[in-house]
Amino acid sequence: MFATIVSVNNPRVKSATQLRESRIRRQRGLFLIDGLREATRAWRCGFRFDSLFWDAGSSAVADQRPDVFQTLSATGRDPARIQEIVELTAQCEARGVHVIPLRTDAFTKIGFGDRNEGVIAVAHTQTTELSQLETVLNERSKDSGQAPLLGVIEGVEKPGNVGAIIRSGDGAGIHALLIATERFDVFNPNVIRASLGAIFHMPIVVDSSENIVAWLRRYKVQRATALCDEALQFHQLDYRRPTAIILGSEAYGLTDLWAQETSEDKQFDLLKKIRLPMLGIADSLNVSNAAAVLFYQARCARDYHMK
Amino acid sequence: MFATIVSVNNPRVKSATQLRESRIRRQRGLFLIDGLREATRAWRCGFRFDSLFWDAGSSAVADQRPDVFQTLSATGRDPARIQEIVELTAQCEARGVHVIPLRTDAFTKIGFGDRNEGVIAVAHTQTTELSQLETVLNERSKDSGQAPLLGVIEGVEKPGNVGAIIRSGDGAGIHALLIATERFDVFNPNVIRASLGAIFHMPIVVDSSENIVAWLRRYKVQRATALCDEALQFHQLDYRRPTAIILGSEAYGLTDLWAQETSEDKQFDLLKKIRLPMLGIADSLNVSNAAAVLFYQARCARDYHMK
Repeated sequence: MFATIVSVNNPRVKSATQLRESRIRRQRGLFLIDGLREATRAWRCGFRFDSLFWDAGSSAVADQRPDVFQTLSATGRDPARIQEIVELTAQCEARGVHVIPLRTDAFTKIGFGDRNEGVIAVAHTQTTELSQLETVLNERSKDSGQAPLLGVIEGVEKPGNVGAIIRSGDGAGIHALLIATERFDVFNPNVIRASLGAIFHMPIVVDSSENIVAWLRRYKVQRATALCDEALQFHQLDYRRPTAIILGSEAYGLTDLWAQETSEDKQFDLLKKIRLPMLGIADSLNVSNAAAVLFYQARCARDYHMK
Repeated sequence: MFATIVSVNNPRVKSATQLRESRIRRQRGLFLIDGLREATRAWRCGFRFDSLFWDAGSSAVADQRPDVFQTLSATGRDPARIQEIVELTAQCEARGVHVIPLRTDAFTKIGFGDRNEGVIAVAHTQTTELSQLETVLNERSKDSGQAPLLGVIEGVEKPGNVGAIIRSGDGAGIHALLIATERFDVFNPNVIRASLGAIFHMPIVVDSSENIVAWLRRYKVQRATALCDEALQFHQLDYRRPTAIILGSEAYGLTDLWAQETSEDKQFDLLKKIRLPMLGIADSLNVSNAAAVLFYQARCARDYHMK
């Protein structure tokens, strides 16, 4: 089990390579984490690993168990990175994860091709159900002592945008991100990459718009709904209340659902239509840029009473 | 000249297709604008067109001059779009631009492949020299009555990021964007695309970091320099002064030049090191997201005395 795998046809390599397909990830509940920083963050954030592949170089032999440090030192990698890889493999092994050295050609077959940071993990997918969100938020709010601050995105399809939104949300201290696109594949490699691994630190809910609106109503969370043509400038909102910042896709905006106001919404003043000033020729921002502006506005309004 | 070009080997088609290469764009001072919204914005913003190709459909014949409206109506395009194409071609023709119908296969050969909005322009590149910037800013400030507000990016290589930064800067009313990456190709199609054409509305300077710093010093513009480990929170700055918001690449940050403080800098309080709070696991934002947050902070601080 610990011998270096040298064949790209090895069943473990083949099986891992299949996880590049969204359908297979969903079927098996497993996904790939390509990259040292990302894998380390996932591990520290408590994601369960099935296996951890590491790149044992091009001349690795099949019939012995290579020492991680010694083998990596021969590959000319940055010593700081080598130390991190050694630590991660040791921690994984101590917790019963299959730690598997691969010859470089087999390793790069699993990876996404444009970089090789020496480790690729196969991890169990893990998202938050709407029914668990209250508990998760109570846990998070305990730390911050603040009312929940959520991000909601609907119909945002580009993995790079979703990843960047997670990264900004993480920076701004958003407590959870709700993705109102059913069956959205959170574990797409480009989401992970663009989030720089922040995805492993952020509770993510994937559910329908209907269920998410219902949840927000039930918990009396005000909905700061980004609609370009509305009168309330984004900085005029009181973000200290339980707040969800809601963004739609650039192409189609938000579905009508998000602009509907029930008597309950009115009673508790839950629906807030906000906009960003657009002073130039373009009529909207890139969705991840709009999210960043709103997330940081909410953060600063809370922490510095900036308004 | 007005006959529909049916051959992908036509010299005009070939010549335009070559502009997909950065080297050729630089040599000829020409670039492609693929897309109706982008071409229209460029035209309205005063960019000079050399020629305008329009997609005359798959059955266009070679020996007559097709009527734009009639031909497009037969292709099943959205009538609103057709009207816009008709107007643009008419305006171009009235100003002596070569307006050239192409059969679809020739048309798509020039375009960037993932969409066909019916028009592709060949336009003359146009940037602002550092030596012209004062004049340009005086012009812009006259409109706004405000001190200059500039964006500066150094080492940001991804065209999509640069385009998104231009789009956010346009929205937030930044007066000019200075790109401190010598020979950066502003007219890369992905810059244009990601900017949604806002690039045509924004004065863009491409020059060395040294020249840009010297210019900013000369005009006593404070340099709000985004450095992750600095003490001044981004919202604490007084953005009403002449201000340049300065961002480096995500991988390498800013070069040392930007952190150097001369006695003149001290005297006039020109160097301001700012940071965004990073409350999660990631240690930075995507550069276009960071730019958006800072641009909008500056805008709101100016317009709403938000601080």
